[in-house]
Amino acid sequence: MFAKRIERLTSSLVRDILAAASRPGVISFAGGLPAEEALYRPDLAQVQSAQQLNCWQYGQTEGEPQLREAIAAEARALGIACEASQVLVLSGSQQGIDLVSKLFIEEGTRVLVEAPAYLAAVQSFRLFGADFLPVTVDPTAGPDNQSFKVALEQAQLAYLTPTFQNPSGYCYPDEQRDRIAAALDTAGVPLFEDDPYRELAFDGAAPQPIVGRLKHAPWVYQGSFSKTLAPGLRLGFLIAHPILVPHLTRLKQAADLHSNRLSQHLILQALQGGLHEHVAQILPIYRERRDAMHVALQRHLGDLVTWQKPVGGLFFWVQFKQPVDTHALMKQALEAGVAIMPGDAFYTEKPALSCLRLNFSHSTPQDIEEGMARLASLLR
Amino acid sequence: MFAKRIERLTSSLVRDILAAASRPGVISFAGGLPAEEALYRPDLAQVQSAQQLNCWQYGQTEGEPQLREAIAAEARALGIACEASQVLVLSGSQQGIDLVSKLFIEEGTRVLVEAPAYLAAVQSFRLFGADFLPVTVDPTAGPDNQSFKVALEQAQLAYLTPTFQNPSGYCYPDEQRDRIAAALDTAGVPLFEDDPYRELAFDGAAPQPIVGRLKHAPWVYQGSFSKTLAPGLRLGFLIAHPILVPHLTRLKQAADLHSNRLSQHLILQALQGGLHEHVAQILPIYRERRDAMHVALQRHLGDLVTWQKPVGGLFFWVQFKQPVDTHALMKQALEAGVAIMPGDAFYTEKPALSCLRLNFSHSTPQDIEEGMARLASLLR
Repeated sequence: MFAKRIERLTSSLVRDILAAASRPGVISFAGGLPAEEALYRPDLAQVQSAQQLNCWQYGQTEGEPQLREAIAAEARALGIACEASQVLVLSGSQQGIDLVSKLFIEEGTRVLVEAPAYLAAVQSFRLFGADFLPVTVDPTAGPDNQSFKVALEQAQLAYLTPTFQNPSGYCYPDEQRDRIAAALDTAGVPLFEDDPYRELAFDGAAPQPIVGRLKHAPWVYQGSFSKTLAPGLRLGFLIAHPILVPHLTRLKQAADLHSNRLSQHLILQALQGGLHEHVAQILPIYRERRDAMHVALQRHLGDLVTWQKPVGGLFFWVQFKQPVDTHALMKQALEAGVAIMPGDAFYTEKPALSCLRLNFSHSTPQDIEEGMARLASLLR
Repeated sequence: MFAKRIERLTSSLVRDILAAASRPGVISFAGGLPAEEALYRPDLAQVQSAQQLNCWQYGQTEGEPQLREAIAAEARALGIACEASQVLVLSGSQQGIDLVSKLFIEEGTRVLVEAPAYLAAVQSFRLFGADFLPVTVDPTAGPDNQSFKVALEQAQLAYLTPTFQNPSGYCYPDEQRDRIAAALDTAGVPLFEDDPYRELAFDGAAPQPIVGRLKHAPWVYQGSFSKTLAPGLRLGFLIAHPILVPHLTRLKQAADLHSNRLSQHLILQALQGGLHEHVAQILPIYRERRDAMHVALQRHLGDLVTWQKPVGGLFFWVQFKQPVDTHALMKQALEAGVAIMPGDAFYTEKPALSCLRLNFSHSTPQDIEEGMARLASLLR
């Protein structure tokens, strides 16, 4: 009865973990939620009184013109030469993954992905029939240059999250970005650069996006307001090479006509005054939690695992020195009131090491300490 | 470079018409916009002050529990036996079309559609590779029973808009709905019933949905708040047979994680107090415009075309007595400041008669009279 792609809809393991993680009393390192204290809560009364709100009728598929202008200006400041006409407002950046999948991927399309990679992107690519070319991302050194080039020779699309990658936390330095941009230009392979964590930089700004360094290769760049403002507003954006924009616009129209106009209005207001101040205010919350998890890992698991202290984003990527059944551990941990995410969920092939992704943004420093202590007692 | 489906992304004719139709000074019968005067404009200040708003964090893919309960209760009152667990909140009902396409349609899937049919659904089905089995919907008598049965023998999915169909305006009576439900049960073909216009009933309530009459066949029913409240909020819903819900939920998660929570909050408030009153208030606006277009058609085009006065929805479906090049007429009309939609856009095969779809909801009675006079002068 169903289309063949439905067989490729991956199991609900992650959904099950996240559902269990949201139970009261569970300390969750499993999800990727912003801190409750960091959420942007716009003053709706002020929105209403300050101006004639005009957001109730159908709107444009591409997004509100002023918002597109503001997004393009922010992107130019990051070093992406672009016009507002290349901007498509999205109903969250997950939608960009759906649209790019539809544009490029059918059964057998070879997609270069990082290993580990963002899970929901891999799931979408798989749904549309992708074959994967995984390139290992070392948590300290990133992708190996030679492996990347070899994969690129086969690839029809490359998907990268070079800035505070989910899950590894790795941030590609300038010279690596330059090398990758040159390789993509030579191969003529389209780049899909996913950049939702850029603003959550704890130890200095991230380097210019890779798409800003490309000379020939087609590209799609996307960002999100979910980590800096409020995920409940479901608003993100993509910016694309001009040859891709008309197709992506029609795909967006077929997906949901256009994005929520009230959210677009609220986000535009934030962009025009307060987004960067808001981010500056929330960074200390994240930095404190990041540091708390680093200290708790040292204290409780320092002899069992290795990790890098992330310089941005929402996650620690933890590798066990000895093989561990992380799925069994996950179940035991849930019984002990701690939710963790097994690392193999982020791979398209079985990984060499046992690993975990641990989210630090949604737990208080006290809960981080307590959760890590519980985890350690299970492992001993 | 692109997936093969991109070749099936239909041309931008309709987008071009709608863009031209939105130019200042153009009287537009081309789109499907609610009356500006009928838009629901929630009091955001009151929303803010009345309660602790909790809509900024990530939410559930299926939608807010209270809203799902309220939608299920409304559906039960229409004669659809269902629970809240079968409800999926959508980012507009266009998203339901995308999700159902993904669930059922791949290259060569045979889909029974009405002829004419809702354009954006046909485009989505085509994008995913559907082959069409069109069943002619007579504007007076609906689909022929025998033709429907023959098409059903081949079909793998049936897509119907039985209530104030876009574009024909036709509303299936009870006995036709019963016959179709029985035929679907016999054939075991899943029904996708699209029902966005039900509340816009000018001459009495519409009959029970077909899905409520099914005994065995799987089904998806969807509705929208765009016609009754505000399309800019981009919120709709689907209700599905229990065996389909887990797949549709995962497809929704891959498409945009979940729908806008502020919109869900605003719509829930409307459902809890005021939606039906709001609809009762706006119906006279629509009835007046519908009657104005009926009179203007009689006055200006009565000898050239045939039509049924629609008992609901947003459109007149007008058939020429003699062949007319409706695309040339559309261009001439645009130059004369009137936007119309050629009827062949709504067919998967070339239709037997020349026809137009004329929207009456977004123009004042004066503009309807003026626009129709201009159209008539072009035709003489």
